[in-house]
Amino acid sequence: MNLAAVTAPRTPRRPAAETRERLLDVGSELINSQGYNNTGINAIVQAAGVPKGSFYYYFASKEDFGLAAIDRFDAHYRSKLDAAFKRPKVPPLDRLRRYLETGMADMIKADFGSGCLIGNLGQELAGRHPAFRERLDLVFSGWVARFAACLDEAHQRGDITLVGDSQQLAEFLLSGWEGALLRAKVTHNTAPLQAFIDLFFTQVLRDA
Amino acid sequence: MNLAAVTAPRTPRRPAAETRERLLDVGSELINSQGYNNTGINAIVQAAGVPKGSFYYYFASKEDFGLAAIDRFDAHYRSKLDAAFKRPKVPPLDRLRRYLETGMADMIKADFGSGCLIGNLGQELAGRHPAFRERLDLVFSGWVARFAACLDEAHQRGDITLVGDSQQLAEFLLSGWEGALLRAKVTHNTAPLQAFIDLFFTQVLRDA
Repeated sequence: MNLAAVTAPRTPRRPAAETRERLLDVGSELINSQGYNNTGINAIVQAAGVPKGSFYYYFASKEDFGLAAIDRFDAHYRSKLDAAFKRPKVPPLDRLRRYLETGMADMIKADFGSGCLIGNLGQELAGRHPAFRERLDLVFSGWVARFAACLDEAHQRGDITLVGDSQQLAEFLLSGWEGALLRAKVTHNTAPLQAFIDLFFTQVLRDA
Repeated sequence: MNLAAVTAPRTPRRPAAETRERLLDVGSELINSQGYNNTGINAIVQAAGVPKGSFYYYFASKEDFGLAAIDRFDAHYRSKLDAAFKRPKVPPLDRLRRYLETGMADMIKADFGSGCLIGNLGQELAGRHPAFRERLDLVFSGWVARFAACLDEAHQRGDITLVGDSQQLAEFLLSGWEGALLRAKVTHNTAPLQAFIDLFFTQVLRDA
């Protein structure tokens, strides 16, 4: 905790709760587009239009902020996953396909510029920051569990035949999709995403 | 070109050719472990133990350096790909499997810390730097062509049945493998790489 900053005269004694959200909003966007290491606290507070003391009122350090940004993204993304997968009336493989197609639409909307915050941070930080690595692993593992449950349901309905276990297949799905998002940033088009969706459904999930 | 730096007194008039290699060696390693944006020219020249003027003797700018680092990695990696794929006596699918297993061994050697320079730079820079995006796309496309040729050969021998074209399958392979490398950095173990290799061979390439 930077006490000097917390007690600086311009710091509001009780900043509004939305200041924290605003810092996380603006900071996450900066981190997603230019990287964590390349995003300074000064840039975050300037973009958020709040005094620097506000940052240290809410976050002990930049790492603390980064981990909070991951948690917040995870919470938001969980609602997205709920919306996509908690739909008992939609056949499980249709839910999965729509989820991937929504991801592809999001990439088009972002002009292939940002990709996945968790993937981006994993690429940048997992090798050198154990605290980030562990948090990111938790988030990814949650997604894998969600995919695995969907694949299990498809298996129970007889829509697919599982050769290995659903967990391994879900890991393959996560890796393949993260890689396709990365490749799409580089090709600047949807071809890698479409290739992944097509082959995943026709080859990986085809009946034995 | 920074002329002031080139004409600075400490700059050797004709630095040895290996100085350029040394700058690229050291700089590529720094970039791969901590990111392009986070690696300053000062850090590169300090780590290389050369005066700053030497940097500007060889490179017009940091971007120029970054693109040269990509080209150099590509050239080195091309020899690795040649060694793996130009082996007419080894069945093509065995070449592919050994290539992926060598990549897995490299990740273990690097303690899951670095991953693929091209993938890392793609994740960090493709969204905002068109010059990098285009160069990285060229490199990835070269790899895809190499994979596609190997898959075509396997198809011609009757080892696999191609459902779509080999190009699409090779794109799927590249995306999946890049994603598995990223995921392995985050899990800090080989499970995602092994899951990718297993399912790619048993599911994606299995005969129709």
